[in-house]
Amino acid sequence: MINKILYKNITNVELPDREIYRKIRERWDRLAKPIDSLGKFEDIVAVIGSIRGTTKVDIEKRILIMICADNGIVGRGVTQSGQEVTKEVAEWMGNNKSSVCIMAKVAGVDTLPVDVGINMEGSPKGVLNRKVRRGTKDFLSEPAMSDVEFEEALNIGIDLVRECVEKGYSIIATGEMGIGNTTTASAVCAALLGCSAKEVTGRGAGIPDSGYVAKIEVINKALFKYGLSDCKNEDADYAKRVAMSVGGLDIVALAGVYIGGLVYRIPIIIDGFISAVAALLAERLIPGTREIMIPSHMGKEKGMKNVLKELKLDPPIDASLALGEGSGAIMLFPLLDMVLALYGNGYVFEETKIQQYDRFEDLK
Amino acid sequence: MINKILYKNITNVELPDREIYRKIRERWDRLAKPIDSLGKFEDIVAVIGSIRGTTKVDIEKRILIMICADNGIVGRGVTQSGQEVTKEVAEWMGNNKSSVCIMAKVAGVDTLPVDVGINMEGSPKGVLNRKVRRGTKDFLSEPAMSDVEFEEALNIGIDLVRECVEKGYSIIATGEMGIGNTTTASAVCAALLGCSAKEVTGRGAGIPDSGYVAKIEVINKALFKYGLSDCKNEDADYAKRVAMSVGGLDIVALAGVYIGGLVYRIPIIIDGFISAVAALLAERLIPGTREIMIPSHMGKEKGMKNVLKELKLDPPIDASLALGEGSGAIMLFPLLDMVLALYGNGYVFEETKIQQYDRFEDLK
Repeated sequence: MINKILYKNITNVELPDREIYRKIRERWDRLAKPIDSLGKFEDIVAVIGSIRGTTKVDIEKRILIMICADNGIVGRGVTQSGQEVTKEVAEWMGNNKSSVCIMAKVAGVDTLPVDVGINMEGSPKGVLNRKVRRGTKDFLSEPAMSDVEFEEALNIGIDLVRECVEKGYSIIATGEMGIGNTTTASAVCAALLGCSAKEVTGRGAGIPDSGYVAKIEVINKALFKYGLSDCKNEDADYAKRVAMSVGGLDIVALAGVYIGGLVYRIPIIIDGFISAVAALLAERLIPGTREIMIPSHMGKEKGMKNVLKELKLDPPIDASLALGEGSGAIMLFPLLDMVLALYGNGYVFEETKIQQYDRFEDLK
Repeated sequence: MINKILYKNITNVELPDREIYRKIRERWDRLAKPIDSLGKFEDIVAVIGSIRGTTKVDIEKRILIMICADNGIVGRGVTQSGQEVTKEVAEWMGNNKSSVCIMAKVAGVDTLPVDVGINMEGSPKGVLNRKVRRGTKDFLSEPAMSDVEFEEALNIGIDLVRECVEKGYSIIATGEMGIGNTTTASAVCAALLGCSAKEVTGRGAGIPDSGYVAKIEVINKALFKYGLSDCKNEDADYAKRVAMSVGGLDIVALAGVYIGGLVYRIPIIIDGFISAVAALLAERLIPGTREIMIPSHMGKEKGMKNVLKELKLDPPIDASLALGEGSGAIMLFPLLDMVLALYGNGYVFEETKIQQYDRFEDLK
């Protein structure tokens, strides 16, 4: 059951349809191949169908939403790059020249860069302007964002999904970009999981040992300052307080995208660490949201395993990716294309001379 | 250095070019993205280039070689299906209708099914006839194959690679099919690694508990019979004896494909457990062969982790696949297509206003 909390529009949301899940798994079993032999992909296809409410699984019209925002904490030396890089990369996204844009073209994925908090006047050309404010505040001095800003960022995410569904998209991949956002993500992650900063903090885009120690110290100080240390608390109110204290606008808007997925019944693909932390935030804000999440890859960043374990999600790609921008999330598409060709066009045992395999292990 | 053993043609084989490997990694570092952020794929691209002897990595003309063979051990109740299924599935491969053929079409991969030991007169239509004999013997009664048959199967594999290179292919994926071949693969694996059968034996295409116990017992008995229990021996002669005693013709021919990759400088993609065991056999027969192997996925079968660990290979996909036929190996292609688009067309830092990241960790 969905808790009706926080967001006025979220009432009577339906969870994915277990009966359709079961029907899709049955078709997989009837296809001329060993039982469960496409592993995690059989589950993913069934989950997508159950979210969309149909056994005819179609992911042809697909989009990657890339949320861009700056983080005030960058002033504390937690990154190799300066804040101006967020603007530069967003410009490249707007021109369809950034790393992920080049990869997305190959996989037939539309890309939508969105500015929810880049520290600049206006937004770069080609980037959707949904700016909440010019970056979060330095969370060592004061909370990263206000109550109103939190709600605004979250609703932007939900609304983006509505717009995508209206345009006919049937699946959405998440991505993000913003210098400093592995620091905010590690802070949110530690606070939500009730674990130490060290356990879930990695080196982001790359920092030397001294910077890494500073990064962990900054997070520890902040968690202590806001009373978020060592308490595992699964309440929505606590999650909101965590996000407002140490979160990024990108993380909150992405949490909105997942919640939008639940509201509008469209699967949302998790990318790397930041995207996964946003997914965990969404699940804490609206329990049940995890049902519309599709994991893509394990990522290189340290806390990723912890977050996906908490969400009980097990991704099919494990390639030490750390590029961000949704680059790992969109890698799922060509794999699903291959798998769906078999799902849609494969031969069932009755069409062959081969006897169907028996299932000796129960479905989860 | 390559040991000159066993196979007359294998002399003066060059190992991949480390200088090209380094140059490709340098280009990755110059591309406008965090250092190492495409993880395992950056390494794979550099390995492919170093094998081909060029920094211009091209995998457009690609083929999947599927080796089919029967296994006499099937008479001992180690499988859910009967031996006739090998012939049926090979027929479907020949008609381009088998599971992997449908998936290969999506990924733009040519498919080449090869009969090295199907238990039938002649080969199915569309399947290349390179039959050594109509399946191996029941290895609980007598050795699976003779010395001459072993050499023949191995040379077939090497020759297939030569033919593919002559046709202009630049990368080869491996696949196999043959009822009972997880049993032979587990036996070869346990003997080569010097571990217990239980440690590396899974349920293959699916068997109930009773069949699973029988499968392990059959392998244990055979290892004891041929004096292959609990001895870790890395000699080529020992490896050959293992393959002749308990191996499959598919495994030996696949080992030949890997060795062919070394001889003709073309990367060979490992698929699942059986393909990986063949890779280990190849490395034991001709040390250094592992240098031309590209791992694709971890697979579901129990011994897979052990084999890839021994080969020091770490695959980018981890999806519990167990379909065989090369289905996991060809999943690597669309991912490499995305990654190579960036490698070939991505922007380097000098073209942006962004400063290049520093590398704080050494390359392996």
